[in-house]
Amino acid sequence: MATEIEAIAWQDDAIVLLDQTRLPGEVVTLACSDVDSLVDAVRRLVVRGAPALGAVGAYGVAVAMLQCQREGWMTDRLDAEVDRVRDARPTAVNLAWGVDRVRPFMARGVEAVIAEAHRIVAEDTAANRQLSRVGADWILAHCARRPLRVVTHCNTGALATTGWGTAFGIIRELAERGEIELVYVDETRPLLQGARLTAYECDHHGIPYVVQSDGAAASTILRGLADFAVIGADRIARNGDTANKIGSVSVALACAAAGIPFVVAAPSSTVDLATPSGEAIDIEMRSGDEVTAWSGVPTTPSGARGFNPAFDVTPASYISAVVTEFGVIEPGPGVTVDAIAGGAL
Amino acid sequence: MATEIEAIAWQDDAIVLLDQTRLPGEVVTLACSDVDSLVDAVRRLVVRGAPALGAVGAYGVAVAMLQCQREGWMTDRLDAEVDRVRDARPTAVNLAWGVDRVRPFMARGVEAVIAEAHRIVAEDTAANRQLSRVGADWILAHCARRPLRVVTHCNTGALATTGWGTAFGIIRELAERGEIELVYVDETRPLLQGARLTAYECDHHGIPYVVQSDGAAASTILRGLADFAVIGADRIARNGDTANKIGSVSVALACAAAGIPFVVAAPSSTVDLATPSGEAIDIEMRSGDEVTAWSGVPTTPSGARGFNPAFDVTPASYISAVVTEFGVIEPGPGVTVDAIAGGAL
Repeated sequence: MATEIEAIAWQDDAIVLLDQTRLPGEVVTLACSDVDSLVDAVRRLVVRGAPALGAVGAYGVAVAMLQCQREGWMTDRLDAEVDRVRDARPTAVNLAWGVDRVRPFMARGVEAVIAEAHRIVAEDTAANRQLSRVGADWILAHCARRPLRVVTHCNTGALATTGWGTAFGIIRELAERGEIELVYVDETRPLLQGARLTAYECDHHGIPYVVQSDGAAASTILRGLADFAVIGADRIARNGDTANKIGSVSVALACAAAGIPFVVAAPSSTVDLATPSGEAIDIEMRSGDEVTAWSGVPTTPSGARGFNPAFDVTPASYISAVVTEFGVIEPGPGVTVDAIAGGAL
Repeated sequence: MATEIEAIAWQDDAIVLLDQTRLPGEVVTLACSDVDSLVDAVRRLVVRGAPALGAVGAYGVAVAMLQCQREGWMTDRLDAEVDRVRDARPTAVNLAWGVDRVRPFMARGVEAVIAEAHRIVAEDTAANRQLSRVGADWILAHCARRPLRVVTHCNTGALATTGWGTAFGIIRELAERGEIELVYVDETRPLLQGARLTAYECDHHGIPYVVQSDGAAASTILRGLADFAVIGADRIARNGDTANKIGSVSVALACAAAGIPFVVAAPSSTVDLATPSGEAIDIEMRSGDEVTAWSGVPTTPSGARGFNPAFDVTPASYISAVVTEFGVIEPGPGVTVDAIAGGAL
């Protein structure tokens, strides 16, 4: 079996990130030992993926505390810097969740915060392994064809998490069981997390795949070339409405039209019971420049404006199953995801 | 008013094409005076767009006849070369339609063929002007909000036609009537005809627009940011099923989910009554390399395979209206588009 890809590590008083903006061309790491560089790395998507951001939030508190010691900040300043980490990106609930989980440990010192961050990583990886087994079982029970062909969007593997993966973790689990024929990887414009990162992870684990443009996903599904689709989540509302990478809802609409399962997979920390439905989710608008140029080459006339929401919301009515490490909920009228939410974490 | 963009001209015994692979960065033309260079230009999408390909097919017969005269081909060879022009791309019915329309004139000499090709151009441009008026009227009757916000996919303006445009022609018509607030231009991966060409045409005509990734279209529609969507067509089957650029059916599914009109606009030459439904349409598979690299920069790990169907088929059940120069059909069970097909052309 291939070695595991490590997106985040804590080394020498710094968060060491595998720089995902450089993959797959270059495999380089970036060490962040101050809040400015960490916030910048989060905003530039050096590290991304909701579960990974949970760990980044937790370790980020340690980064702020160590910088506070070095630079002699007052308490107010430390609180403000921790809030900057917490708010570096708005849509993923996990970043704030990671910060909030370690905050009570701050009074006990930086080592206690780091230890709690390590626990988050261990728990998240274990949650991913578990939700992958649960999700794989659900899919095998709901898809008749063998082996399976699956569409996925964005990147939800080890690079997006603390290890193993969520939606991609289910695909890995199915692949280990010998049940995967082909993965249709949506390239995931504008930043190509599918083409760059999911393809890299498929290669790494020897899982057969093709890369398709996001616009091809609906056609692949309607033509009967896929048996199900599985995506991750950046935030799951109480009714099951799910915010995920822009383009996800297109996949969901096509699955509904074709009558195949559309599955959302995420650790329970992604479930936000305080958000009743998708309407309450704040959607991050990113710079239009991400759409109007690629790799420094303009793709539009100069002066063109890009419209660049980073996420969309898939209504629960188009979701066949929401999977966390605590089980599976099939959304429907009056159904909530409380039973698989992260109260226990 | 801005000057018209000319995608195709006949000059000095050659088809002169505005090289659309170089737009918007460079405005250069390419003259094709032999079948090899013409077929290559068609396959590389130097010229593309179903109606434009009709004119290319017609002028292409003249190119083959002139090359025949220069090189002393036998009749069999000429027939074979004409067939190569006819079959340079499979999905658009217009290329074959243009060839077949001028074929009866071959016996009367190349000047007669060229004259008929000129008539095709004049008729196509007139058809586009007419269908744009008809389509604009239909949309104003079916959308309440003013001014209008519209999603469009791929390029269907003067660059895709012999002049004025089809789906984009309707947008131009509405803009001239002062009814357009904003055009959401899908970038249209993998070849970015939206980002490169439709944006160029919007700029040229001073129509307000933003460019969005294809995956953003569904979200834009579901969030209520658009009042309708309009696309062109590469082939319209008798029941209204429509083949168009990959990604079109995603837009249609989102419009259906949001309850806003999804309109298909094309000259009647695009309607193929011999094709009963979308299932009978041959979908061109293009090289996966178009997906795995952009502007020479790889977007995937080396060795990754791209899956690259050039078109998808939108079932008539998701189409609110099909518009040609002969009128509007609203598809439904048992409805056919015969009444707006090109029998008269």
